[in-house]
Amino acid sequence: MAATALNEENLSFLKTVLPFWEKLTPAQKRTVTDSALPRVYYRGESMHRGSEHCAGLLLVKSGQLRVYIISESGKEITLYRLFDNDICIFSASCMMKNINFDIYVETEQETQVLQIPTVVYNQLNQTNIAVSDFTSQLMASRFSDVMWVMEQVLFTSFDKRLALFLLEQSAIDGSDRLTITHEAIAKHMGSAREVVTRMLKYFQSEGMVTLSRGEITLKDRKKLEKLK
Amino acid sequence: MAATALNEENLSFLKTVLPFWEKLTPAQKRTVTDSALPRVYYRGESMHRGSEHCAGLLLVKSGQLRVYIISESGKEITLYRLFDNDICIFSASCMMKNINFDIYVETEQETQVLQIPTVVYNQLNQTNIAVSDFTSQLMASRFSDVMWVMEQVLFTSFDKRLALFLLEQSAIDGSDRLTITHEAIAKHMGSAREVVTRMLKYFQSEGMVTLSRGEITLKDRKKLEKLK
Repeated sequence: MAATALNEENLSFLKTVLPFWEKLTPAQKRTVTDSALPRVYYRGESMHRGSEHCAGLLLVKSGQLRVYIISESGKEITLYRLFDNDICIFSASCMMKNINFDIYVETEQETQVLQIPTVVYNQLNQTNIAVSDFTSQLMASRFSDVMWVMEQVLFTSFDKRLALFLLEQSAIDGSDRLTITHEAIAKHMGSAREVVTRMLKYFQSEGMVTLSRGEITLKDRKKLEKLK
Repeated sequence: MAATALNEENLSFLKTVLPFWEKLTPAQKRTVTDSALPRVYYRGESMHRGSEHCAGLLLVKSGQLRVYIISESGKEITLYRLFDNDICIFSASCMMKNINFDIYVETEQETQVLQIPTVVYNQLNQTNIAVSDFTSQLMASRFSDVMWVMEQVLFTSFDKRLALFLLEQSAIDGSDRLTITHEAIAKHMGSAREVVTRMLKYFQSEGMVTLSRGEITLKDRKKLEKLK
């Protein structure tokens, strides 16, 4: 795709979201603005699939992304989610030779991004210490997210994890009525649909949620909070 | 502890193990050699305990380290191990403000290290892009190790994981006779002692291992290899 001149809104977004902006040389700033590509991804679109392609650094203007891993047999678990003003580094992971796991990224809502090509970001990273430090910090932050998931999986019982997931999802959606399938929850949690359904039915019998086709309604947030 | 002049052997080790050595300025090289501290840790000694202290970058001259996390209830899982010429970055994790999980490091063998104080390494990291890039690469590498463990825990059945652990341990020890308790294996694998014992007894009934007090002997490596 050809380079496009960034409009004022995108330029101002770049300056806000990239903490190293003021540390770039004029030439480096120009390279970024000349190569940054505004893109819209539709809901449910795949943005990054393992080692298949390497889109670059994705700066999220608005929307919602899910970052996950997937087993050979197709089992998934969500590592973290990204929202407005977050930055996706693993979509540029091909520039880091020591990353040898496959990360998948898909949109959960329509998502507007500015995309900085991997080759451009890599060049900045090799020549500007503020960028290099930012890469480290961002990776450390995602590492922390993943360790949190790992501790949850290893050390927390499934009922607590499910209560936590429902409360978080309700906060993200801004509603007590969640439009989500048991299958989708299983994919977030690295579990199986049957296990999710069984626990949700138990939650329903305890008056914490009500279940209907493709929908879960939180009925007793206090009880769920207590569980988590 | 006071700074000590490094002997020739330690100096040559520094140059070998730090890929950025030649990119340091003469002043930076001097800071490193003036502050690097040779230390010996005995077998089973704790080198790093979560946020308790921040020893610095540990360059392993010889020995064996286990890096792990621990739950509130005391359950453990090994994330990776370090051997000769490896570098432990998480013992300097306090310099990375986005690392908010607690890592534990202990020796599994008597271990000789050169320790570069956190404040010295942090200073290099902030001013030298070769160091900053090395930090990113090292973190990416450990991130990959941890993702491997996570995929194992999530996606691989326990019998396969145990077979893999026994074969790896045998490779590390250079012997078919492993001097290790079921409790210790459980701590490596993030499991419970009972679960390990049950599976080992099944392996014994299948002729793959023999069990005796505090010892496991691999009897049929081919069958174990096939399982993993």
